Amino acid sequence: MEAINASIGFDQRMAAQDIEGSRAHAAMLAAQGIIDGKDAEAIREGLLTILSEIEGGGFAFSTALEDIHMNVEARLKEVIGEPAGRLHTGRSRNDQVATDFKLWTRDQLDAVDQALGALIKALLAQAEAGADWVMPGFTHLQVAQPVTWGHHMMAYVEMFARDRSRIQDARRRMNECPLGAAALAGTSFPIDREATAQALGFDRPAANSLDAVSDRDFALEFLAAASICAMHLSRLAEELVIWSSAQFRFVTLSDRFSTGSSIMPQKKNPDAAELIRAKIGRIFGANVALMTVMKGLPLAYSKDMQEDKEQVFDAADNLMLALAAMEGMVKDMSANRDSLEVAAATGFSTATDLADWLVRVLGMPFRDAHHVTGSLVAKAEAKGCDLPDLSLEEMQSVHEHITQDVFDVLGVHNSVASRTSYGGTAPSRVREQVARWKEALA
Amino acid sequence: MEAINASIGFDQRMAAQDIEGSRAHAAMLAAQGIIDGKDAEAIREGLLTILSEIEGGGFAFSTALEDIHMNVEARLKEVIGEPAGRLHTGRSRNDQVATDFKLWTRDQLDAVDQALGALIKALLAQAEAGADWVMPGFTHLQVAQPVTWGHHMMAYVEMFARDRSRIQDARRRMNECPLGAAALAGTSFPIDREATAQALGFDRPAANSLDAVSDRDFALEFLAAASICAMHLSRLAEELVIWSSAQFRFVTLSDRFSTGSSIMPQKKNPDAAELIRAKIGRIFGANVALMTVMKGLPLAYSKDMQEDKEQVFDAADNLMLALAAMEGMVKDMSANRDSLEVAAATGFSTATDLADWLVRVLGMPFRDAHHVTGSLVAKAEAKGCDLPDLSLEEMQSVHEHITQDVFDVLGVHNSVASRTSYGGTAPSRVREQVARWKEALA
Amino acid sequence: MEAINASIGFDQRMAAQDIEGSRAHAAMLAAQGIIDGKDAEAIREGLLTILSEIEGGGFAFSTALEDIHMNVEARLKEVIGEPAGRLHTGRSRNDQVATDFKLWTRDQLDAVDQALGALIKALLAQAEAGADWVMPGFTHLQVAQPVTWGHHMMAYVEMFARDRSRIQDARRRMNECPLGAAALAGTSFPIDREATAQALGFDRPAANSLDAVSDRDFALEFLAAASICAMHLSRLAEELVIWSSAQFRFVTLSDRFSTGSSIMPQKKNPDAAELIRAKIGRIFGANVALMTVMKGLPLAYSKDMQEDKEQVFDAADNLMLALAAMEGMVKDMSANRDSLEVAAATGFSTATDLADWLVRVLGMPFRDAHHVTGSLVAKAEAKGCDLPDLSLEEMQSVHEHITQDVFDVLGVHNSVASRTSYGGTAPSRVREQVARWKEALA
Amino acid sequence: MEAINASIGFDQRMAAQDIEGSRAHAAMLAAQGIIDGKDAEAIREGLLTILSEIEGGGFAFSTALEDIHMNVEARLKEVIGEPAGRLHTGRSRNDQVATDFKLWTRDQLDAVDQALGALIKALLAQAEAGADWVMPGFTHLQVAQPVTWGHHMMAYVEMFARDRSRIQDARRRMNECPLGAAALAGTSFPIDREATAQALGFDRPAANSLDAVSDRDFALEFLAAASICAMHLSRLAEELVIWSSAQFRFVTLSDRFSTGSSIMPQKKNPDAAELIRAKIGRIFGANVALMTVMKGLPLAYSKDMQEDKEQVFDAADNLMLALAAMEGMVKDMSANRDSLEVAAATGFSTATDLADWLVRVLGMPFRDAHHVTGSLVAKAEAKGCDLPDLSLEEMQSVHEHITQDVFDVLGVHNSVASRTSYGGTAPSRVREQVARWKEALA
Repeated sequence: MEAINASIGFDQRMAAQDIEGSRAHAAMLAAQGIIDGKDAEAIREGLLTILSEIEGGGFAFSTALEDIHMNVEARLKEVIGEPAGRLHTGRSRNDQVATDFKLWTRDQLDAVDQALGALIKALLAQAEAGADWVMPGFTHLQVAQPVTWGHHMMAYVEMFARDRSRIQDARRRMNECPLGAAALAGTSFPIDREATAQALGFDRPAANSLDAVSDRDFALEFLAAASICAMHLSRLAEELVIWSSAQFRFVTLSDRFSTGSSIMPQKKNPDAAELIRAKIGRIFGANVALMTVMKGLPLAYSKDMQEDKEQVFDAADNLMLALAAMEGMVKDMSANRDSLEVAAATGFSTATDLADWLVRVLGMPFRDAHHVTGSLVAKAEAKGCDLPDLSLEEMQSVHEHITQDVFDVLGVHNSVASRTSYGGTAPSRVREQVARWKEALA
Repeated sequence: MEAINASIGFDQRMAAQDIEGSRAHAAMLAAQGIIDGKDAEAIREGLLTILSEIEGGGFAFSTALEDIHMNVEARLKEVIGEPAGRLHTGRSRNDQVATDFKLWTRDQLDAVDQALGALIKALLAQAEAGADWVMPGFTHLQVAQPVTWGHHMMAYVEMFARDRSRIQDARRRMNECPLGAAALAGTSFPIDREATAQALGFDRPAANSLDAVSDRDFALEFLAAASICAMHLSRLAEELVIWSSAQFRFVTLSDRFSTGSSIMPQKKNPDAAELIRAKIGRIFGANVALMTVMKGLPLAYSKDMQEDKEQVFDAADNLMLALAAMEGMVKDMSANRDSLEVAAATGFSTATDLADWLVRVLGMPFRDAHHVTGSLVAKAEAKGCDLPDLSLEEMQSVHEHITQDVFDVLGVHNSVASRTSYGGTAPSRVREQVARWKEALA
Repeated sequence: MEAINASIGFDQRMAAQDIEGSRAHAAMLAAQGIIDGKDAEAIREGLLTILSEIEGGGFAFSTALEDIHMNVEARLKEVIGEPAGRLHTGRSRNDQVATDFKLWTRDQLDAVDQALGALIKALLAQAEAGADWVMPGFTHLQVAQPVTWGHHMMAYVEMFARDRSRIQDARRRMNECPLGAAALAGTSFPIDREATAQALGFDRPAANSLDAVSDRDFALEFLAAASICAMHLSRLAEELVIWSSAQFRFVTLSDRFSTGSSIMPQKKNPDAAELIRAKIGRIFGANVALMTVMKGLPLAYSKDMQEDKEQVFDAADNLMLALAAMEGMVKDMSANRDSLEVAAATGFSTATDLADWLVRVLGMPFRDAHHVTGSLVAKAEAKGCDLPDLSLEEMQSVHEHITQDVFDVLGVHNSVASRTSYGGTAPSRVREQVARWKEALA
Repeated sequence: MEAINASIGFDQRMAAQDIEGSRAHAAMLAAQGIIDGKDAEAIREGLLTILSEIEGGGFAFSTALEDIHMNVEARLKEVIGEPAGRLHTGRSRNDQVATDFKLWTRDQLDAVDQALGALIKALLAQAEAGADWVMPGFTHLQVAQPVTWGHHMMAYVEMFARDRSRIQDARRRMNECPLGAAALAGTSFPIDREATAQALGFDRPAANSLDAVSDRDFALEFLAAASICAMHLSRLAEELVIWSSAQFRFVTLSDRFSTGSSIMPQKKNPDAAELIRAKIGRIFGANVALMTVMKGLPLAYSKDMQEDKEQVFDAADNLMLALAAMEGMVKDMSANRDSLEVAAATGFSTATDLADWLVRVLGMPFRDAHHVTGSLVAKAEAKGCDLPDLSLEEMQSVHEHITQDVFDVLGVHNSVASRTSYGGTAPSRVREQVARWKEALA
């Protein structure tokens, strides 16, 4: 029973938050005259002593005392004696654990927000450096149109910026303080919930005590946002793995983020990218786990909810690890510009440029222009060459009004430069976006 | 191959959005001089004709044409001839489908927002009517403290209000227009993405064309928010099932939301509540499904992403169904006040009131007061009575300083009335919250 | 990088399996003449030394050495010198880790199998004791028909027996040895894979070396079977939580598996049941996690797969904990026979017995009999009594051919005794099933 | 309410199973003398009439009648009158729906089994044709060692054969008949459950009536097995997508299973492979959905369980679609032998062969041999050549005892031919496995 019941094995990670919450509570109790100033002072001193014991590694956690709250309280009694018994006035373990866990989760939201910022900066640096490097844009992993390296990097900036935005919304929504909800019904002591909320950095006290102790939305919303972020990481990681293959050779990862083989010293396994790609598993698994736990739980508190913390701890740890590793990898990696450009120029990748030219210059309807382009590509393929290698005569044999000007749109550099619609891949547009984001992050 | 490849079986649900997007695109093309006004007018008329054919049920969808976009375009060619071929200038199926799907999802976000508002109003009505009805507050499904019916209802108001807030955040974040991203790289036509974004009610055009066609965050965020909402519904539904049991008899559901047995006419099975409880399964299942699909997909577009729509359609349909059914059930249900009050008074449910009295009035430390209370409960239990049935002498035999005043806190009505901390269960506090929410929703 | 890359933090749990595998491999190498007998003997001794160091807690694990395999190998070199370098002949880390992990998982399958056996025995004891105790059979948590306690317990015996069967099938299917698959292609050394397979208790060597190193089906199948088992546990746990409520009082849990409140000494919170109910979350979450990791991984080995172990470790630990706690709870719990019988007799629970009597004795069509029964129930409800309390005259006023014999089927004991169809709730049938299972488990 | 409650929209797919079950039940009732022969005959005829109406599309399903069972029963009454009312004797909707759903699921298990057999045959044909075609064996998507095409195909044969084995185990375990469990308690009619079980192809009747109506393990086990199978499909599909890229060019997919671009006629998008890769999403999503539904449901029947069918229907449909598409793709695809062989020979892929030679021929310890090999690879890399291009002198400058014989192991054909350990990639071993499987499937 002790094995299944005790949580001290993991909830000791919330020690700092527990003590912070208790300090705020004790100060409020004194300010409201519920306990006297001397007791409050003893409690404050005692809690600081315990915090330093824990931080110094000298605190002996006891499984028999089940959880972090009882461990701290029992030690407080040893340290300061009788006043320790007054600390729990006007609160209960239910609102205490909700408060501790919210504080811990809020710290993680802030940490993830910051890590995302660092990753975005690394991507911006790559985008700025390679705003005009040409590479293939893929659909179905088939070359579709040339794009720029900077443009590709900026796509991930958009994704991770949405992740930040989700994290920030989650933080704002969850920032209501459960402390003072007591067991579930509130209390008859004249506590000041505004005061404790403010002391702990919350925007306001939670407005319903039943909800305050039974709510784990903040944990679920963190896990949901973390999962989407991990999905983005998995996409970038997958690209890095593919791009590192001998067949692609689009990027070279640094030795810091790849592992070698004693037998094949030239080999660089993209281990870090693979591990990052995999992290969505455990992070989203944690989301599934906690959602399953919460399904169908009656109000207010059920012990099932003790399963919440390990999931959030593990997901947060692994997301932070993955973000830091991805930031390092992005910073360190070098694009192989030549391979990228060669790949971009194959596969008739400027066929749409040709079709658009036919529409724009010759005024053909879109669908007709596509038909003509198809014939030209077929001709080039039969001849074993690429589109720019066809002669004007060969072109005119398919459609007589084609002029020499067409060759201007067939090169990959011209192609990307021409795509100047807002959000397009043209280097000018990419630089515009880089500038916008750098300013936003400044 | 056609069986696995065609999407027209489900994506015809986006017909209105597809036509709306095409109309905005055509109007912009004309305004920019990319197509001429006559063609634009023909396209506009043709699209309206098709819309009315679809809405009237007279449109013959073709699987050979694969998807809604090709079905509409092919029909447009039949209706207006050659100008139809100019509609696709400066866009591609990739940005078109992203736009359609976003418009459809945005409509659902609005519908869910509204349905949540209606459910909240039904809960507020229950809370207002029963602000001072006493019922047991449970932890571990064991009676812990008396609370009020209104307080319990208001806990769900908080939950569903958070759901609304999440839905609104999701809507704001997703409200960027993919149209004009073209296949993935943007376009060389001088399109005006601001104009189409505005015409379709978007806040702005999406800032990166690669991201615009490969992003499905909006669908995932909808599914994540819908899943948390479904979790809340499952908790309320579970309570309704338990409360409807012969053993609890806390509520009576209306005949509209329960089913009978031909053989046991008195029996009321809470079928609707059970089905609502179950809906989290398919809604969260859809979240898992789409998250799994998106894991590790390289940019920009992969056909895997065609699996996105059915999940969102099914989740949205079922969430709307569940919200409407829950709203109806909450409106119709009647609390059995007598059963609730009797249940609230059993199990020494005011023991914490007694302990708090010892702390507050006699100045005992919290933990000591708990010890004394435990002894008094044990005495009552041994005597086979409840706490208010002990005599003052019996009380004083446990702790001599207890006075007659203690009996004021032992009744369930006094208990709930005393819990006046902010967010507490006191009827005054409940009415305050009801008023706050009614004003917020007015 | 080290933080994200190293696995020694968790894979040291496979130390015994790693050493067992290495011993089998070394013995085979010697038997095949690939290494000489003296080296093999040194390796064997060295490995036993290391095993005893690890078991004794005296082994210093190093994160720099990344994983358990390198930790053991590096230590072996320290202990025995040069021959250590010959151990890795004809194998690689890929087949080594697959073998270790399979051995570990196989041990868990055996442990779960045994724990399920113990739980089934506890349920059989309850069923045998209460083969004829009457309780309500529920549908929709509404009383439907009387059943017996023994019958209800035996329903769970069937469920957990299916779990065992799934676990045993999984064990049989996974019992193929990866060792000797080497990195992925097999080896040119004349190894004897039959010999190592046999030495390690496998049925045969895995038949394809690529598959052998990239297969994690055994882990996924364990997680899937564990998840279904956890679902069964969640259903029984939910029933125990509901049955322990003051409103039901169907069972009393022992103090060992419930927790009290210092303030309400009579209160018994079913904490263990709630925690067991919740375990499906993390166990199925682990299943989702690993399934997500494996999605779309190309052959043969990718580093993503390093995420496999922690999920299986955590799921196995928690399933074992939940099974043991459930076994203890079932053993200790006592059914409140009176409450059960009273509850069984309410709600016109024998209405179907009455209808069946009308069909059987009076030869009425089933649907007509239901109609008559409905009228009789309505009459009893109007009179405020139960079915057996109606007089024969009152019955005959609804249907004239009803005779005195009808009263034989209206009592709950007669009801359950009459349901003698195979698998039915009659005590005779329950005892038959108990006997069948006891024999099967003997 | 009707919208959320009715199931006829989807459960009409079980019409044939429902009628089959009713026919078996009626025949048994007559054989046991519970209904008379004339009624049984009328029921039989009536049911066949209805079956032919349904199969002919002439049956008018009614939502008001909620489900397939009531639709059939109501129509039966129209067709044959009063005897229809006797069909439901000794059964209830609970055991009827469980039986129907099991029969339907069993049919799917058989269909999946067969489809897996067909896919395995397609893989065997590829393996046989290419038993000695050399290709790169990858770890981390980096070339590790040469393997054979046949060997790679056979890895998937092993995977899909395990899937079959799981499907067959699931079928055997679920093949117990719920019919006669009645509502939940069994019945007092002298029914013969052995007879109905046998008539419906079950191995035996389910042994506990409560379990029989509340069990959905068979659906969950199907979904779990289907999910693992879908995971295997996603891995093969991922490989096909990567192998089809311009950078790899390992395979050419047929036009049937790829789609082109009107504008780039040479382009072949691997749409079918991508859709197959994605199917794990909805199939595993269905598994999550039903597991979530079943979590914590008390016995015996709850309406939540009505959510079971759509998940299984959708998963089964999509798995069958994916298996058929994959079979077709594998049959049609052609390996580009030249590209495969060139790729296999790059990246010093025979370095382990060299190391093994040093161990085997020169008797070096494994770890020393790795060191020497690393130096030789570095020398080749510095020289810009591959291992076989080094001269004997260059080799001997690293290790003097190397002889001319070493060159025998450095070619990719020699490399694969040498890996003759059981399960290895040697063509002889591959052919052995192909023969084994062809015999097993004959």
